[in-house]
Amino acid sequence: MAADEGSGSGSAPPSLQDLTIDNITPNTIKINSQCKNQRLKYVMERLVTHIHDFARETRISTEEWMAGLNFLVQAGQISSDVRHEFILLSDVLGLSLLVDDINHPKPANTTEGSVLGPFHTHDAPTLENGANMSSDPQGEPMVCICNVKDTNGKPIEGIKIDIWETDSTGHYDVQHSDRNEPTERCVMLSDANGDFWFKCILPVSYPIPHDGPIGKLLEKLGRHPWRPAHLHFMFEKEGYDHLITALYMRGDPYEASDAVFGVKKSLIVEPQRIDAATAKKYGVPENSWVLKHDFVLTTDQETADLRDKLATEALAKLGLNLKLVDHLPVPDLD
Amino acid sequence: MAADEGSGSGSAPPSLQDLTIDNITPNTIKINSQCKNQRLKYVMERLVTHIHDFARETRISTEEWMAGLNFLVQAGQISSDVRHEFILLSDVLGLSLLVDDINHPKPANTTEGSVLGPFHTHDAPTLENGANMSSDPQGEPMVCICNVKDTNGKPIEGIKIDIWETDSTGHYDVQHSDRNEPTERCVMLSDANGDFWFKCILPVSYPIPHDGPIGKLLEKLGRHPWRPAHLHFMFEKEGYDHLITALYMRGDPYEASDAVFGVKKSLIVEPQRIDAATAKKYGVPENSWVLKHDFVLTTDQETADLRDKLATEALAKLGLNLKLVDHLPVPDLD
Repeated sequence: MAADEGSGSGSAPPSLQDLTIDNITPNTIKINSQCKNQRLKYVMERLVTHIHDFARETRISTEEWMAGLNFLVQAGQISSDVRHEFILLSDVLGLSLLVDDINHPKPANTTEGSVLGPFHTHDAPTLENGANMSSDPQGEPMVCICNVKDTNGKPIEGIKIDIWETDSTGHYDVQHSDRNEPTERCVMLSDANGDFWFKCILPVSYPIPHDGPIGKLLEKLGRHPWRPAHLHFMFEKEGYDHLITALYMRGDPYEASDAVFGVKKSLIVEPQRIDAATAKKYGVPENSWVLKHDFVLTTDQETADLRDKLATEALAKLGLNLKLVDHLPVPDLD
Repeated sequence: MAADEGSGSGSAPPSLQDLTIDNITPNTIKINSQCKNQRLKYVMERLVTHIHDFARETRISTEEWMAGLNFLVQAGQISSDVRHEFILLSDVLGLSLLVDDINHPKPANTTEGSVLGPFHTHDAPTLENGANMSSDPQGEPMVCICNVKDTNGKPIEGIKIDIWETDSTGHYDVQHSDRNEPTERCVMLSDANGDFWFKCILPVSYPIPHDGPIGKLLEKLGRHPWRPAHLHFMFEKEGYDHLITALYMRGDPYEASDAVFGVKKSLIVEPQRIDAATAKKYGVPENSWVLKHDFVLTTDQETADLRDKLATEALAKLGLNLKLVDHLPVPDLD
C-alpha cells in the first residue's frame, strides 16, 4: 500500500492513496500536522483519533453515519441569534459541565460554577440596586439580597453581575417570538460593601427547548428535558475569574435529575417567606419570597494556578508527554 | 459527593448532583442507559466517552469549546438542499473513507469503493447507452466504455448506475446558483452483456467548496482543498452491495494528496486518445479521449459475510465484549 504507515513525524507529506480502516488515522494526523499552530495541531490529533476510534469501536453503519451528519445539519439550521442548539447538545452530553470544571476549578469555600446554557444575551439593561428585573405579574415576587467577596473575605466593589431567569411559564424572553425588549434579565453592579439586591420572581422548573433535534435525541434516550428551578448569575471584573453559576431552589422535583447536569449541592438555596420589616425595607409585598446568598469569588491568578496544577497532574496521570503553553497542553518535543 | 460513581449498571437512575471532571462520564452514560434501543445505547456510550476524553486530554479552554460550537452552527447554516457541509467535514477528517471501508470491505479483485462526497443528487436524467451526459462545450470530449460483472465473471444486467462529474471549470451543476436542470450527471442501465457506455468530458481537478467553515479549517491546518480529476459512479441493484466509487485520472497533480482521501491505486485509470475506428463506432470527434473500465461487484451476501468477519475480528482485537445484532455491535450481556 502507498499510504504512509504513520511512523515518524518527518516533514514530508504522506502519500494519500489506498487508505483503509487500519492506516487512515496516522495519515490524517500526518497531513494535519502541516499546521503551524502547535495547539491546534494537538487538538486536531486528539479529535481525529477519537472520531476514528468511535467509528471503529461502533463499526458505525453508513446509514447511522448519514443520520448523524443530518442531525448536525438540523442542529445548525434550528440555531439562530437567540438559539444555540449546539450549546444544548454540549449541555445534555455533559460536555459543558466538564469544560466548566476544567477551566474554572474552585478552591474550597468559594462559589462553584454551573452551566451557562443557551439563554444568556448581551442586551440586558443595567439596573440600579433594588430594581425589579421581572415584568411578569403572574410570577411569585421575590427579593434577592446578595453579597460578593474575595477569598480573603474582602467585599468586591463594582463587579458586573449578569442575572437572568425565565418568566412564570418557564420561558426565557428570547423564546417568545414577539419579544420586543429584554425581560427577566438585567446587569447590576455591586456597591462598596459588595452588596447587590434586586426584585425578581421565584424561579420555576422548565424543559430545555425540546422541539428540535436535541429534544428528539433525549426522547430516544428515555431522558426528560427538565431543569430544576434556578436563577442564573455571571460575574465579571478584571482580575477576577469569570464566574458563571446559578442558584437552584431546594425541593424542586428535578433537583437530582437536571437534564444538563448543572446542580451542585452548594448552589441549592431555600427562599423564605419575607418578614414584614424586610418587606418594608425593600419595598416588596408581604407575600414575597426572600433569598439571601453570599458569593465568594477567586482571582484570575488563583484560578489559573489551580487550573495549571490540576492540568499538570491530570496529564501526567494520562501518560501523555505534554507541556503547558499559555496554560494549554501541547506536545512536549524538547 | 452525591453523583453516582458509575459502578454497577442497576436500573435506578443516578443522582445527578456535584458532577465533576472525574464523575461526569459514568453518570452521563448511566442516565443515557435508560435508552431501550441497545444499539443507540452503545453508540452513545462510546460517543460520550470519546467526547469527554477529548476534553480531558486537551484540557479544552472555554474559548476553544465555544469556537468549536460556533463552527458547527456555521457548518449547519451554510448547508442547503445542494450543499452538505458536514459530509465535507467528515470527508476532510478521513471519517467518510473509514466509514466506507468498515461497511463495504472488498474481496480481492473486486472494484474498491471511494468517497461519495456532497454532490450526488437524485434528479439526474436516465439516459440511453451512448448518450452524452455533458452539455459543456469547453470540456475535452471523452467516451467511457464500461462493463460490470459479478465475482464469478458473470455480466450484471440492468444495474442502475449513477454517474456524475464537474464541468470543465471544476464545478458541479449544483454549485451554479443559476442551475435550472441537472447537467454533467446521469443514470444509466447496463445491457445484457453488463455493458454501458456514455459520452462525457475529461474530468478536471477542482477544490472542494472552501468558502465555508471547512475551507477555513483546511487553511488553518496548512492543507490544500484540491481533489484530483475523477468521475463518480454509484451502482445499485437488489442483491448486490451498493457500490460508491470513482475513477481517478492518472498523472493528476493531486493524485497523492486528495483533500478527502478517496484515491485507491486500483481506481486510477489512463484515458487514451481515441482511434478513428472507435471514434466512428461511438460517434465522437476524432480528438476525443476514450476510457475503458470494467467493474466487478460483490453481492450483498458476500459483503455482509466479509463485513461481519472483519467486525468480529476487529472487536475481539479491541478487547470489547460485544456481539453482532443485525450486523452491528452491541454489548454482549449474556
